[in-house]
Amino acid sequence: MRIAFLGLGKMGVAILKHLLPGNEITVWNRTLSTAEALRSEGVKVAATPQEAVKEAEAVFSILLNDAAVEDVFLEQGALKAMPSGAIHACLSTISVASSQRLTEAHQQAGRPFVGAPVFGRPHVAEAGKLWSVLAGEDASLAKLRPLVERYSRGVTVVGEQPWSAHAMKVGGNFMITAMIASLTEGFVFAEANGIEPATYLQVVNQGLFQSPFVEMYGGLMLHPPETPGGTIALGEKDARLFLEAARGAHVPAPLAHQFHEHLKQAMTEGMQDADWAGGYYQLAKTVAGRKRGNN
Amino acid sequence: MRIAFLGLGKMGVAILKHLLPGNEITVWNRTLSTAEALRSEGVKVAATPQEAVKEAEAVFSILLNDAAVEDVFLEQGALKAMPSGAIHACLSTISVASSQRLTEAHQQAGRPFVGAPVFGRPHVAEAGKLWSVLAGEDASLAKLRPLVERYSRGVTVVGEQPWSAHAMKVGGNFMITAMIASLTEGFVFAEANGIEPATYLQVVNQGLFQSPFVEMYGGLMLHPPETPGGTIALGEKDARLFLEAARGAHVPAPLAHQFHEHLKQAMTEGMQDADWAGGYYQLAKTVAGRKRGNN
Repeated sequence: MRIAFLGLGKMGVAILKHLLPGNEITVWNRTLSTAEALRSEGVKVAATPQEAVKEAEAVFSILLNDAAVEDVFLEQGALKAMPSGAIHACLSTISVASSQRLTEAHQQAGRPFVGAPVFGRPHVAEAGKLWSVLAGEDASLAKLRPLVERYSRGVTVVGEQPWSAHAMKVGGNFMITAMIASLTEGFVFAEANGIEPATYLQVVNQGLFQSPFVEMYGGLMLHPPETPGGTIALGEKDARLFLEAARGAHVPAPLAHQFHEHLKQAMTEGMQDADWAGGYYQLAKTVAGRKRGNN
Repeated sequence: MRIAFLGLGKMGVAILKHLLPGNEITVWNRTLSTAEALRSEGVKVAATPQEAVKEAEAVFSILLNDAAVEDVFLEQGALKAMPSGAIHACLSTISVASSQRLTEAHQQAGRPFVGAPVFGRPHVAEAGKLWSVLAGEDASLAKLRPLVERYSRGVTVVGEQPWSAHAMKVGGNFMITAMIASLTEGFVFAEANGIEPATYLQVVNQGLFQSPFVEMYGGLMLHPPETPGGTIALGEKDARLFLEAARGAHVPAPLAHQFHEHLKQAMTEGMQDADWAGGYYQLAKTVAGRKRGNN
């Protein structure tokens, strides 16, 4: 298949490599050097997004954020440059509102649009073990699915509206934030009651969750990595995307509101580049210390 | 070993059966008929707690709540009736404040006291697969541990202060409430964005948590059982115990505060006997429906 691939961050490159065998791939990236390095893998490099997509049967995009996706497809005109039968699979974590604008623009332009965000970090993408969420018309999903399965350990179809896949991504990240926030309150409580946070983590995970994910995030909170996997700034953005989407859908989101307040507080304390799990816990320990000092 | 076992609810009976082989056991229960039914298993039945404990080397108690434990041991005098070397292992989920009163009373009476609450439902207790949390002096823990291991798939020692084990139990239940509350907000968000809650659960658990516990609780929320495993009233009590213990230890508990408010609201709407996971979600759906109706 002729594939255009836009966006060559860590995730993009890891995913692209699974699509190489048997396909004809043209890439585009804002920074050309990253794209040039892939020539040896047999991909063509385009100078503009429009050039990359103009003969594609499928377009995969994994660009940074709302602004980048809307700029490339709507402002720069990649959407109109796509052949009329070409399907656009948008893997980025974008806001539900932005995905709704893209859904509408693709409908008007008569190009199938598929929401296709992924769960997993770059090393999971390299291993081809992401969890993919798809939403769009059945015919488009059927064509894309074999490609998506190449980099995924599992695929869930969430609906026919492309933006519902991006809502699912935002809703999944909410559960990660909720876990970090809950473990944070638990750790602070444990320590104040003479229990080591690591012991608390052992009991709640081995006695209750039995989750490799809780184990991993709890470990990051107790021993924050020197290079954060995600930052407080990204966590704040995730919480904001959830809140905005809840507001857009007219439903309450009291927990997300509280998480967002905590993350904003961490930002004002200069922690924007701290690991989002470790930083969240660090802030709570600081606040608890101040409270205990006042009692 | 000569063991006294006080409290023969579903959990008590299931645990007791693992202690039978090779031990000489005397039981006491508020309702005598439950105790009488155990005579055929070879246990002696005492008419009062004092009679049950008077020749024991180890006393296991799993009574209903703070009031029941304090009544039996402090008011009725089971503590003073224990031989001086006998160890009391308290398995109940009680408040940290009550456990602190019991810790102090046992110290004054010169009887070793061990906090020994358990994680798991009655069928897990029957299978001998509970997760036990122990806190107390090393020598007492060493004596009790082989008995505790008979009904546990794992044991975590959390500290030397008996009440810290009860804090751990309250802190573990907080994580269950947090999971229910987070899934609730996620389900409401998903549904408002065109995603089936069951699909949301599949993605967050298979894509992220990979936890049999999240799977089980999520299932209870979507399909509440006719006979609740736990009720809203019990959930409200758990959240209150956490809040009180956090207040006692002078640390903030913003999430527990919010959970408690939601559970109290469910109580005022007459849902005290609903399943605590299913009821929590039901209330949030009702509130979201009202909010959307106003928009």
